[in-house]
Amino acid sequence: MMKAGQFGFRLTAIDGETKARCGVMTTPHGECETPLFMPVATSASVKAMRPDEVRGLGFEMVLANAYHLMLRPGVEVVEGAGGLHSFMRWDGPVLTDSGGYQVFSLGRAVKITEEGASFRSHHDGGSVFLSPETSMELQGRLGADIIMALDECLPYPSERDVAERSLRLNYDWAVRCRDSHDDEQRALFGIIQGGMFADLRARAAQMMVGLGFPGYGLGGLSVGEPRELTFELISETLAHVPEKAPVYLMGLGDLPGIAESVALGVDMFDSALPTRIARNGSAMVDGGRINIRNARFTSDNGPLEPSCECYACSNFSRAYIRHLFMSKEILGLHLLTCHNLHKLSHLMSRIRAAIVEGSFPALLREFRSEDGPR
Amino acid sequence: MMKAGQFGFRLTAIDGETKARCGVMTTPHGECETPLFMPVATSASVKAMRPDEVRGLGFEMVLANAYHLMLRPGVEVVEGAGGLHSFMRWDGPVLTDSGGYQVFSLGRAVKITEEGASFRSHHDGGSVFLSPETSMELQGRLGADIIMALDECLPYPSERDVAERSLRLNYDWAVRCRDSHDDEQRALFGIIQGGMFADLRARAAQMMVGLGFPGYGLGGLSVGEPRELTFELISETLAHVPEKAPVYLMGLGDLPGIAESVALGVDMFDSALPTRIARNGSAMVDGGRINIRNARFTSDNGPLEPSCECYACSNFSRAYIRHLFMSKEILGLHLLTCHNLHKLSHLMSRIRAAIVEGSFPALLREFRSEDGPR
Repeated sequence: MMKAGQFGFRLTAIDGETKARCGVMTTPHGECETPLFMPVATSASVKAMRPDEVRGLGFEMVLANAYHLMLRPGVEVVEGAGGLHSFMRWDGPVLTDSGGYQVFSLGRAVKITEEGASFRSHHDGGSVFLSPETSMELQGRLGADIIMALDECLPYPSERDVAERSLRLNYDWAVRCRDSHDDEQRALFGIIQGGMFADLRARAAQMMVGLGFPGYGLGGLSVGEPRELTFELISETLAHVPEKAPVYLMGLGDLPGIAESVALGVDMFDSALPTRIARNGSAMVDGGRINIRNARFTSDNGPLEPSCECYACSNFSRAYIRHLFMSKEILGLHLLTCHNLHKLSHLMSRIRAAIVEGSFPALLREFRSEDGPR
Repeated sequence: MMKAGQFGFRLTAIDGETKARCGVMTTPHGECETPLFMPVATSASVKAMRPDEVRGLGFEMVLANAYHLMLRPGVEVVEGAGGLHSFMRWDGPVLTDSGGYQVFSLGRAVKITEEGASFRSHHDGGSVFLSPETSMELQGRLGADIIMALDECLPYPSERDVAERSLRLNYDWAVRCRDSHDDEQRALFGIIQGGMFADLRARAAQMMVGLGFPGYGLGGLSVGEPRELTFELISETLAHVPEKAPVYLMGLGDLPGIAESVALGVDMFDSALPTRIARNGSAMVDGGRINIRNARFTSDNGPLEPSCECYACSNFSRAYIRHLFMSKEILGLHLLTCHNLHKLSHLMSRIRAAIVEGSFPALLREFRSEDGPR
C-alpha cells in the first residue's frame, strides 16, 4: 500500500465550454476517477447493500460519518478492527465527514464555544465534546483516506451577521484542524461556508485557500435555498479556488444538480438521497421519479426503467418490486437501492466520458430537458 | 423445459443402519437431490436474500405460501407475470404450501364446514373462501412444481375425538384435491395428520397412501410437542408409507432435528426458523446459537463461526455484524441470514455425502453431541 502522504489530484481532461473537468485522485487506498459520487455509508454500511455490490456498481470511494461512528460503535471498536476499511470491508478510499453537520442540526441541545461543541449522545444521553483537535484525532483513528475539517453549519436561512461571525469561527477551527492534523497519514480538506451570501462565500474561499488544503468541501449548500442561488454561490466560490484542487460539494445528490455542478467545476459529490428515497419506494428514472408503491404498478410486468441495465431492472418487474414493498420484504429495499445507485454511477461515468470526448455541453442539455434523468 | 407430468423420485443411496436415504427428485423445473431443505419464500422472497444468492448457497428448491400470495399480491398478479418462477426470478423447482396451516392458525376468525374454510383477509378484511377445489386452482395458477393438499391443522394439544373427526375431514378433502387436480401440470402431495396419536397417524398414512399420491407431507408436527414424541410419530407414520415415495416433514428447521428425521426416512424439509432467527440476531453455530446483539461481541474481531466459509464469515467480524444490528442496518439482517442458510445448506450436503459414503450414523452421533451444530 502506498503512503498516505502521497495524496494527489491531477486533471486529465477539461471541457472547452464549461468548467467541467476530469481528474484522477490518488489516495492511500488507490486511485479514483473524478467527477465521482460517493455512496453514503453513514454507519459504515451503504444501507441495504453489500460492499462488494457497491464496488460492482462502479463506485470507487464511499463516505462514512465520524460523528455517528464515534457514538456507535465507538472509535475504539473501529480502531480495534484495524480501521474503517477492514471493519466495513471496503478496500477502496474512504472519506469521513467530521459530523459538523450532524452536531449542529441537533439545534438547542448543542453548546458551542470557541473551544468546540458540547452535546449529548442521542443513544445513551452521555456528554460528548467535539473540538477541531478531537475531530482530527477521531477521524485519524477511524482511518479514513480523506477527512474533513470540523465546521459550524448554519441553519437556513441565517442572517448576515450570524454568517459573518460563523465565518470567523470556521477559519479559526480550520487553522486548528490543520495544525493538529498529521498530513502523512491522510488528506485533510477545508470546508468553505458563508451562508447564502456570495461575498462571504468568496471571502471564506480566499481564507481557506490561504491555509493551503489539498482539497475543499463546499458546505451548507442545497439546504433549502433556490436552486439558481446554489449554482450562483458555487460559481462565485470556485472563482477563488485554485484549479488544481479537488472540490467536493457536500450533500447534493440529484442527477440534474450534479450535472450542473460538474459544469461549474465540482469534482466530488455525496448524498444519502438515492439510497434514502429508495427505501421510501422511489426509483430515479428519466423524466421524473416513480414511487413503486403506486397502485398503477400492481400488474406492470415491465422493469423499473426499460433502458436500465442494473440488477433490479435486468431481473425483476415493477409488479414484483411493488409486491415486495407492500409486503415489507427487505429485497424490495435492496432492489430499489441497486437501481438508484446504478443510476448515479451510470451518470458519473457518462459525465466523465463526455468531458473526455468533448460532448459534455450536449450531455448537460440532456439533463436540462424535461424528460432527462431525475 | 420437461413436461410437468414427468415428476419423479428415485432413490440413489440407502443407509445400511438407519432409514436415511438419498434420492433425486425430477420436476418441471429441473432435478434436485434429497434430502433437501427448502428456504421459505412465504411471499415469493426468501427474506433479506436475492434469489441468485439463495441458489449460490446450494439450495435447489424453495417454498412459497399460496395463502399469503392469494391475499397479496393476488393470484392474478402472479399468474399475469407468468407464474411464481418468473415473478420471483427463481428458475428451480418451487413447492407451494396450501396455506392450510395459516388458515387454521387464525383460530376463531375461520369458519370451517365440510365444503371448505371461510375467513377474512388480514389485509383488507375481505371475505375469502378456500376449499380443496379452490386451493388446487390457486396453486395451479401460481404455477408451483409441487403443490400440497388442503388440510385441517389441529391446534396443539387436541383431544382424540377432535383428531379423529379431523382425520375424516382431511381424507375427504384429500380425495377432492386429487380429483380436481390436473396431474400433468404439477405433482400433488397428500398430507398426513393425526394429532399426537400414533395409531391415528398410522391410519392417516394408510388412508393417504391408498389415494396414491406421488409424495407425502407430514403435517402438524414440531408444534410444541416433546421432541421424542415427534420422532416416534414420524417413525410410526413412515412404517406405512411406501419407500419409493418422497416424504416431506413440514416446518422443522433445527439442525439436530433434521438429522434425526433424515435417519427416520424423511427426504424434504422447510422452515422459516433459520431466516427468522437471523433477523432477531441469532446465528446458528456448533454447540449452540449465539445472539450477535450480546455486548460480549462489541470488540470481537473474529467471524461468527471460525470454521464457516459463508460470505458473512469470510468477510465480516462479529463486532461489525453486532454494530450493524445495533444500528438497525439492513446488511446485518442479510449477513446473519446468509450464515444460517449456509449452515442449513452445508448440513444437507454433509448428510447426503455421508449417506452415500456409508458414514451417516457417525454424522448423526456428531449431531447428537453437545457441541454439535445447532
